[in-house]
Amino acid sequence: MTNLVATSARPPMPWFGIDIGGTLAKVVYFEPDDVSDMEEKKKLQTIKHYLKTNKAYGKTGKRDAHLEIARCRMGGFAGTLHFIRFPTADMQAFISLAKDKSIASTTTTICATGGGAQMFEPSFRNELNLTLHKFDELDTLISGIHYINQYNANAECYYLEYGNNCVTKGTYEKVPYCLSDLDPYPFLVVNIGSGVSVLAVSSATTFRRVTGTSLGGGTFHGLCCLLTGCETFEEAIELARQGDSTKVDKLVGDIYGGDYAKFNLPASIVASSFGNMICPLHRAEATKEDLARATLVTITNNIGSIAFMTATNEKINRVMFAGNFLRGNTLSMQMLAYAMHFWSNGTLKALFFEHEGYFGAVGGLMELLKGID
Amino acid sequence: MTNLVATSARPPMPWFGIDIGGTLAKVVYFEPDDVSDMEEKKKLQTIKHYLKTNKAYGKTGKRDAHLEIARCRMGGFAGTLHFIRFPTADMQAFISLAKDKSIASTTTTICATGGGAQMFEPSFRNELNLTLHKFDELDTLISGIHYINQYNANAECYYLEYGNNCVTKGTYEKVPYCLSDLDPYPFLVVNIGSGVSVLAVSSATTFRRVTGTSLGGGTFHGLCCLLTGCETFEEAIELARQGDSTKVDKLVGDIYGGDYAKFNLPASIVASSFGNMICPLHRAEATKEDLARATLVTITNNIGSIAFMTATNEKINRVMFAGNFLRGNTLSMQMLAYAMHFWSNGTLKALFFEHEGYFGAVGGLMELLKGID
Repeated sequence: MTNLVATSARPPMPWFGIDIGGTLAKVVYFEPDDVSDMEEKKKLQTIKHYLKTNKAYGKTGKRDAHLEIARCRMGGFAGTLHFIRFPTADMQAFISLAKDKSIASTTTTICATGGGAQMFEPSFRNELNLTLHKFDELDTLISGIHYINQYNANAECYYLEYGNNCVTKGTYEKVPYCLSDLDPYPFLVVNIGSGVSVLAVSSATTFRRVTGTSLGGGTFHGLCCLLTGCETFEEAIELARQGDSTKVDKLVGDIYGGDYAKFNLPASIVASSFGNMICPLHRAEATKEDLARATLVTITNNIGSIAFMTATNEKINRVMFAGNFLRGNTLSMQMLAYAMHFWSNGTLKALFFEHEGYFGAVGGLMELLKGID
Repeated sequence: MTNLVATSARPPMPWFGIDIGGTLAKVVYFEPDDVSDMEEKKKLQTIKHYLKTNKAYGKTGKRDAHLEIARCRMGGFAGTLHFIRFPTADMQAFISLAKDKSIASTTTTICATGGGAQMFEPSFRNELNLTLHKFDELDTLISGIHYINQYNANAECYYLEYGNNCVTKGTYEKVPYCLSDLDPYPFLVVNIGSGVSVLAVSSATTFRRVTGTSLGGGTFHGLCCLLTGCETFEEAIELARQGDSTKVDKLVGDIYGGDYAKFNLPASIVASSFGNMICPLHRAEATKEDLARATLVTITNNIGSIAFMTATNEKINRVMFAGNFLRGNTLSMQMLAYAMHFWSNGTLKALFFEHEGYFGAVGGLMELLKGID
C-alpha cells in the first residue's frame, strides 16, 4: 500500500515540518515505512540512524519519543511521525548540525511555519541552499490539530475530571475525549506559546483569530528568570510546583477580612496578583518558589479569563488549549480546567492535547501535501 | 440657603466618606459653609483648622488640594469637598491620629466602603467607639461618579486627543467631555485599583459587574518593587517613564523579522511580554527603568484589552477609566486612549476623570444622604 505516488508527483524526501516560534522550534519528521527511490532510501537511512540512536541532538535538541505516532498516512505513504524540539535561540546551531550530519540538503523538503520561518529563511537558503515551503502559523496549527486527532483519535484529546469519589478525591484524572466521534464544531483553540492566540474554529477549513494576549509562556518564563534566577522553563515550572502564591498575591480575604459576598467573590480568590509584594515584610517572606508559583497563577488565570470571555461571546462550549506552555505543566492545566468549569457553572469544557506544541509543525507538512494521497 | 435640614433629620456632623482599598484608603470630608448647632460648629472648626493648615497628615497622609470641590451640595448643605489619601497599611495609625486630634468621636458620621470597611470595622468600634455606615464599593463607585460629574460637570471628565496638527503633533491633549450635556448611558467603568473591576452602567441607578482582573495597580507596584527595588508607586511610575519596554518584551518583529502581515500585527507590537528576559544577554542589558516600563506596558495593555473586549460584547462605546492606578500615570492613560481608538477603528472612546480614585469615598456619603436635600 505504500509508495503508490510517483516521486515526481510529490516533494522529494526527507519531509520535515518545522514551526519556529518565539521561544521553541518544533520539528516533525515523517519516516515512511518504505520508499522505492534508491537515492531517497539512502538519505532516509542516514536520518533514521541519527534520529533513532539519539534522544538528544546537539546541546539542546530533544526528541519526544513518547509522542511518536506510528501507522499514520501522509502524502500517499504509511509511516511514523517523530517529534523533536529545541530553543529558537539555537536555530543557527541546528542549521549547522543538519548540514554536518547530512540531514538536510538541497532536495530536503522543509515546510516551515511560525515567525521564524520568515526570520530564518535567508539562513536556510545561504547555508543549506534550501528553499522553505512557508505556511501561516495559524493555518498550520488548525490543520495540524485536525490531522493528529484523526490518527490518534482515542488518545490525543482529553479533559481533566476532578475526583469526587473516595478513590480519586482531590485529584484530577485524565479522561479521553474523542473528537472524531462527534461533530466537534465550533470549538475555540487557545494556543499558548510565548504569546497567546485565540481562534474560533467553525469547520475543518474555517477559523478566525478572535483575540490574543502578549501575556503567555514567554512572560511566565521571562519573569521567573528575573524573579528567581532560574534559567529554563522546566526549572521555573518545578519552582512553581513547590511554591505558595497566596503569600505573594493579595487575596479578597486580605482586603475584606473574609468573602466579598455581594459579588460572589470568596476570600480565597486573588484580588491583586503580586499585590502583597508592595509591602517589605511580605517581600522578605516570599521565597523564589512562591514567586514562581504566583507568576504561574497570574499568567494562567489571565489566559483562562480571556478564554472564558471569548468562549462566552462566541457561544462556544469547547475550549481546546494547545502550545508548549502546557508541556509538563500540570498545574496550569488543572487551573484552566477548574476555571472553565467554575466560571461557566459546568457548561464549558477545557480540553487538552498530548501533542500540545506540535500541531503547527505537523500542519505545515499537511498544507504542502494536501491533495496528495 | 444652607442649614435648612433639622439636625435630627440627618446624621450628625462631621461627615466623612472613606473607601478602604487593598492599597490606598481614600477619604473625603464635606465641609459645610455653615451650621447652626453650636456643638457641631465647634467640632467642625477643629477639623477645619487641622485640615487647612496641613497638606500632609501623619507620615503618609496627603491632601489633594487641587481636587477640592467648592460650592457643592450634600444632604441639604452647601459646602466644600476635600480629598485625602493614605496607604491602607497605615490604617491603624490613622485611627489613632483621628482620636488624638479629636477629629473622630462617637458622633462622627463615617460612611465606609471598600474591603477595608469590613476588615477595619472592629478597630473603629473599639478605638473610637464608632459605628461605620457601610456600603458596597461598587454601588458607591457608581454613585460617586454621578455625583462628582454633576458638580464638576465641565472639568471632571476628559479624553486624550492625539495631536496631528503642527502645534500638537505627537502629543496628547486633554479635551473636556461633559457627561451631563448628553445621555451618557450606557457606559463602561473600568476601575483600576489594586485589582480591576469592569462595570456596565445602563442608567443612573443600574449597573452590573461584567468582569474583572487581578492584574491591576497592585500587580504593577508589587512587581516593580521586586524587579527594581523601588518602594512607592510614584517611584515605580517615574522609573517606567524613563525606561524602554522593547528591550524586555519580545516584539512581533523579534520573532518574524518584520510584520505578521496576514493578521495585521505590525513588527512593533508586543508578541510576548517579558519574552526577551528568557535570554541571559537581554537580561544583562535591561535596566530597572526598562523593567518598570515593561511592567507598566504589560499591565496597562492587558487591562485595555479586557476593556475593549467587554465594551465590544456589551455594545458600549464609552469606556471610563477610574481608580488610583491612573494617578500621575500619564503613560497608562495615553496607552489606554490609543488602544481603545486603535482596536475599535475610532469607534470607542477612552474617558478619564480628575477625581479618578475618589468616587467610592464620595459615593459612600451620597448613599447615606440619599433623600436628604
